[in-house]
Amino acid sequence: MDEFDLIRRYFTRRVRTDGVVVGVGDDGAIFESTPGMQQVQVIDTLVEGVHFPSNLHAADVGYRVVAVNLSDIAAMGARPRWMTLALTLSDKDEQWVEDFARGLFAAADDHGVELVGGDTTRGDVVVATVHVTGEVEAGRALLRSGARAGDVVYITGTPGDAAAGLSLIEDGRHDDHLVPRFLRPVPRLAEGRVLAGVASACIDVSDGLVADLTKLCEASGVGADLDVDAVPLSDAIVERFGRDRAVDFALTGGDDYELCFTAPAGANDHLAWATAIGVITTGNAVTCRRGDEIVDVDDAGYRHFA
Amino acid sequence: MDEFDLIRRYFTRRVRTDGVVVGVGDDGAIFESTPGMQQVQVIDTLVEGVHFPSNLHAADVGYRVVAVNLSDIAAMGARPRWMTLALTLSDKDEQWVEDFARGLFAAADDHGVELVGGDTTRGDVVVATVHVTGEVEAGRALLRSGARAGDVVYITGTPGDAAAGLSLIEDGRHDDHLVPRFLRPVPRLAEGRVLAGVASACIDVSDGLVADLTKLCEASGVGADLDVDAVPLSDAIVERFGRDRAVDFALTGGDDYELCFTAPAGANDHLAWATAIGVITTGNAVTCRRGDEIVDVDDAGYRHFA
Repeated sequence: MDEFDLIRRYFTRRVRTDGVVVGVGDDGAIFESTPGMQQVQVIDTLVEGVHFPSNLHAADVGYRVVAVNLSDIAAMGARPRWMTLALTLSDKDEQWVEDFARGLFAAADDHGVELVGGDTTRGDVVVATVHVTGEVEAGRALLRSGARAGDVVYITGTPGDAAAGLSLIEDGRHDDHLVPRFLRPVPRLAEGRVLAGVASACIDVSDGLVADLTKLCEASGVGADLDVDAVPLSDAIVERFGRDRAVDFALTGGDDYELCFTAPAGANDHLAWATAIGVITTGNAVTCRRGDEIVDVDDAGYRHFA
Repeated sequence: MDEFDLIRRYFTRRVRTDGVVVGVGDDGAIFESTPGMQQVQVIDTLVEGVHFPSNLHAADVGYRVVAVNLSDIAAMGARPRWMTLALTLSDKDEQWVEDFARGLFAAADDHGVELVGGDTTRGDVVVATVHVTGEVEAGRALLRSGARAGDVVYITGTPGDAAAGLSLIEDGRHDDHLVPRFLRPVPRLAEGRVLAGVASACIDVSDGLVADLTKLCEASGVGADLDVDAVPLSDAIVERFGRDRAVDFALTGGDDYELCFTAPAGANDHLAWATAIGVITTGNAVTCRRGDEIVDVDDAGYRHFA
């Protein structure tokens, strides 16, 4: 089956949203952006053997590559609209492509984004790149650079679950809570929309809470004190791994796609769905504290998979 | 050097065009599209060992991956504005990345497109994906689907040169005309802009003249008679390969990134910079003719590199 048949069979379907003039099948896609809105564009790649194990189900790969991009859209406070796909395939069979496409469209449908174009190529391993265009009201996008000393640091959800889930997958095990957090991450789109114009800075946690909070602090020219005991842990991760390893996953594990954001202290009332875990300082680093004690965290960066 | 340093050192520079609110460095890029214009988005991937030889100079890889995408923008009649890059690197050293970035920005500067974001990952071979957003006046984009029986078929430039150049590279040879046509393809952006609203259908020649004209005909529900002797050949290709092989390269060689387009017979006066090579028919296939004789062309698809 050549590229043309592949695209026609698995990646072409009736466009379901407004604004798309020409979708999959021409040299490019054509659409109309919404007057008065700014555009947000993100691009993210998953490489087989680096970001996911080779034996991961194709539908999960398709779902994940959309979800991780939508997480970036969420971190900008935008609404996702259109996406394009660049898919490099190895010797995967047609069933693999069909499953990948099913997962990709499931994520698209879950979050209201439309596939408008793409490119398929051959390679040694699967390399899946998705580009998403979102829209946000002019001037309301969430940046990494707006945190100020005194702002409160928040996290959505329970970080660490995805990394713990990946460790189960690597051990050939399964469960009903942690593994799905890795396989089918939920981009925090609704939360991002609420935060647009409210949060002072925002980043999505893909490399680990401490690592990504550090990036936010660097972009803002500030530091942060992180209260380790305040970081919310899921019951599942504590039961399965114990509190100490759970905290380690939560601080350094990636792939969560929760939002870490900052807001002025007074904004607290509106943010009950998130957890306050620290405060922005005039320093230039993230310090993890447990009471008066400083906790040493290896934030050298999360190994997504190896 | 980690991803963050890599992006900061080689892929971040001052934004030079209007409309970019936030460029490289945050979770996504933010920009403002031009009121009244439709957007065109394209995405294209080059895989090491498939679309280019491993020993191709990194600067040429960087230039090419931008140029092939801009060719799709040209084929839509749009003006390029913004681009994002997803770069999967193997064990390439820093010098390779620096050279790649230099080539990428050279192409960007040559054609007025701004890098606004990207993602770098690790893999076994280089996989470079570029996504370009362009703008076109509402309703004037060039599609593949508008060709009508009686329309004249045109080609820009001299097709076949790039494939001939690639064959020289594969033989370890060089020249001053054909090899540069492969290494530094020139997207026909100015021509595309002139054609917007004039041509009835358009496609860029990446897989070969006959193969891509066939796609245009399929999209338009028509056929075409192609006059083989009318296809323009460069002096360089005829001198180097003789007329017969030159015609073969011109009909089946890819990587040219010339525009193949159709226009009503009366539009001829405005299109002196292109060459009329055939006519659209009521059939359903592309027939290559030399006088009264039908020429059999193997249009099974061009092998970009192997």
